[in-house]
Amino acid sequence: MRFLHTADWHIGKKLHGYDLIPEQEDAYQQIKAIAKREKVDAVVIAGDLYDRALPSEPAVTALTNMLVDLNRKEKFPLLAISGNHDSGVRLGYGQEWFASTDFFLRTRLADALKPVTLQDTQFFLLPYFEPVQARQFFDDESIRTVNQAMERLVAAMQEKFDATKKHVLIAHFFAAGSNHSDSETLVQVGGLNAVPVDMLAPFDYVALGHLHRKEALQNEPTVKYSGSPLKFSTSEAADTKGVWIIDTDQTPVSVTFEPLKPWHDLVVLEDSFTNLMDRDHAYAVTPEDFVAVNLTDTTPITNVMQRLKTRFPRVIELNRVNQLDVTPDELDVKQVQQDPLTLLGDFFEQVTQHPLTEQQQVWARQALQAAEKEADE
Amino acid sequence: MRFLHTADWHIGKKLHGYDLIPEQEDAYQQIKAIAKREKVDAVVIAGDLYDRALPSEPAVTALTNMLVDLNRKEKFPLLAISGNHDSGVRLGYGQEWFASTDFFLRTRLADALKPVTLQDTQFFLLPYFEPVQARQFFDDESIRTVNQAMERLVAAMQEKFDATKKHVLIAHFFAAGSNHSDSETLVQVGGLNAVPVDMLAPFDYVALGHLHRKEALQNEPTVKYSGSPLKFSTSEAADTKGVWIIDTDQTPVSVTFEPLKPWHDLVVLEDSFTNLMDRDHAYAVTPEDFVAVNLTDTTPITNVMQRLKTRFPRVIELNRVNQLDVTPDELDVKQVQQDPLTLLGDFFEQVTQHPLTEQQQVWARQALQAAEKEADE
Repeated sequence: MRFLHTADWHIGKKLHGYDLIPEQEDAYQQIKAIAKREKVDAVVIAGDLYDRALPSEPAVTALTNMLVDLNRKEKFPLLAISGNHDSGVRLGYGQEWFASTDFFLRTRLADALKPVTLQDTQFFLLPYFEPVQARQFFDDESIRTVNQAMERLVAAMQEKFDATKKHVLIAHFFAAGSNHSDSETLVQVGGLNAVPVDMLAPFDYVALGHLHRKEALQNEPTVKYSGSPLKFSTSEAADTKGVWIIDTDQTPVSVTFEPLKPWHDLVVLEDSFTNLMDRDHAYAVTPEDFVAVNLTDTTPITNVMQRLKTRFPRVIELNRVNQLDVTPDELDVKQVQQDPLTLLGDFFEQVTQHPLTEQQQVWARQALQAAEKEADE
Repeated sequence: MRFLHTADWHIGKKLHGYDLIPEQEDAYQQIKAIAKREKVDAVVIAGDLYDRALPSEPAVTALTNMLVDLNRKEKFPLLAISGNHDSGVRLGYGQEWFASTDFFLRTRLADALKPVTLQDTQFFLLPYFEPVQARQFFDDESIRTVNQAMERLVAAMQEKFDATKKHVLIAHFFAAGSNHSDSETLVQVGGLNAVPVDMLAPFDYVALGHLHRKEALQNEPTVKYSGSPLKFSTSEAADTKGVWIIDTDQTPVSVTFEPLKPWHDLVVLEDSFTNLMDRDHAYAVTPEDFVAVNLTDTTPITNVMQRLKTRFPRVIELNRVNQLDVTPDELDVKQVQQDPLTLLGDFFEQVTQHPLTEQQQVWARQALQAAEKEADE
């Protein structure tokens, strides 16, 4: 059979305050188009369908529409698991009905040992889990890490192997050896909680979610992260996002990459403020692109974020790549003491990328007056 | 056909801090037993399945288990709508799949005009809606009230009537003439937003949710509130909760009431403190029953809540039915000023029904010391 492997949709995620749902809907349309063009027999989504355990109503509506469209309208069988960003309970509501149209959603550890067979392949759907869940499931106090749990789980899965079929694992964890980008939760990454790739050798293919860059596992022909469909952080700016297409009728299975084209890209621009603000200076950026700015200047610039946004409306990050060329003595300390409100406003805007509202200015002024009164007393 | 009408399950509701899920699971088992004993062909749930738009994970698990059990295991067709306490979007996730086993869940106004036909009956499932939604749906700026919206909706439904069938409306609103108890949200109750019962005459039966007492509509043989399966407030203490069984093969349809027996009752006790604390004094109350106390005493009693709980562990309310027989002069004002911590503790416990934790006592002491220091300065 032939299936598509994607993961880490993170529906409802915001990028520095920008709603990504329109971008996510565009990426979904591209994934669907690839599935149709490549005539796949199933679509695999390896966890983190939502960005939060409590997704917003617009996020629920967006994901529901995608699942209804892909499974009920386009008739693709779906194989999906919950990731660490999903609430298994909330995402799993309704799963008993989903199988009526070959939508196999698994959110409980125990379900990992009930493979789904489609054509020539047995799929093992292992949702994200904590070691404590495996400890309870196997009733074995010695299980302390994901690594230890996986040893037991893989052995238990192998007992269910039908020797006449191919075997695919769908899972959501950190596989050892991976290089990780910084847009996924790092808490679980590394050390004892990493699963060594060798342990996954019994499977013909392992469809992973969790890390957002497919480059996280580069040298494993049949253990793959699909990566996220969108760039979620500047460390992914240079990535090519996409999905994998897997053909199981060969041994080893054949795996090809199909790229997604970002509707609005995430771009890092490194230059001086003067160049960046110069409209004659051309950058390969559209007004809707998300821009991270690496400023090369060595002098302080006032209102820098607000001014950059007149040129690049969706600036999401501002970094200084060179140290400021001033000593504390050179800073106008008197000025600093005399105008704390302006300073506060600049600081607030640098941090939040929004100017203070009028109400916030009133509050700030009141707080300052109270503080000054105390200082005078 | 023969169907069961229930509503206002409010899964996840807490009663003065007490988790009701075990009580709700017991009530569900009774409803299921009635459905089986009465051999109904379908079960109608007229809104407010959850207590909150964002139900907790235990609430999602509890309701999911009930729906899976009733529909997938016991094979009862289900007809359900969202109420004002539900998030239509969250509850509705998966609804496209539910119909595969005759679970008809409707959460969008437009779906009210797509009747579900089961045997001899057309069911119109009208979820809770705001006038603005009807205004948009009919593209008619003149629609300002639920009343006006219902006039249009009933007319539109009548156009869909199959004359060879019975016609049942499932809805969640305040029907005019009802007496309401105080455990549902009162915001929408009354005045322009009430639907006159006369307007519902075209239907053979109207299965309503929203008000928690079946007595809210007593004189309408075929327009009924089922009421909630549990008592949610002291105003419902004397009620008999239950469900309706409707037979459509007669005209008018026949309607019979089937009572539910509360696992732990909600009881109002009105007596003096001395009598209430006297263990020789028998009250028809189990230790698990929820007890609202109407104290007849006219003198102040210290630590009253804590002491009552030694006798009735689940006191949920404390009211004084007589005015205190003291004047401000008689109160020991000096004592009040000298021991604010004790006073605070008593007050906190009366309001929250929990004593201050040690940490809270530390915070309170620190705050008091700071306040006293200020007063001294």
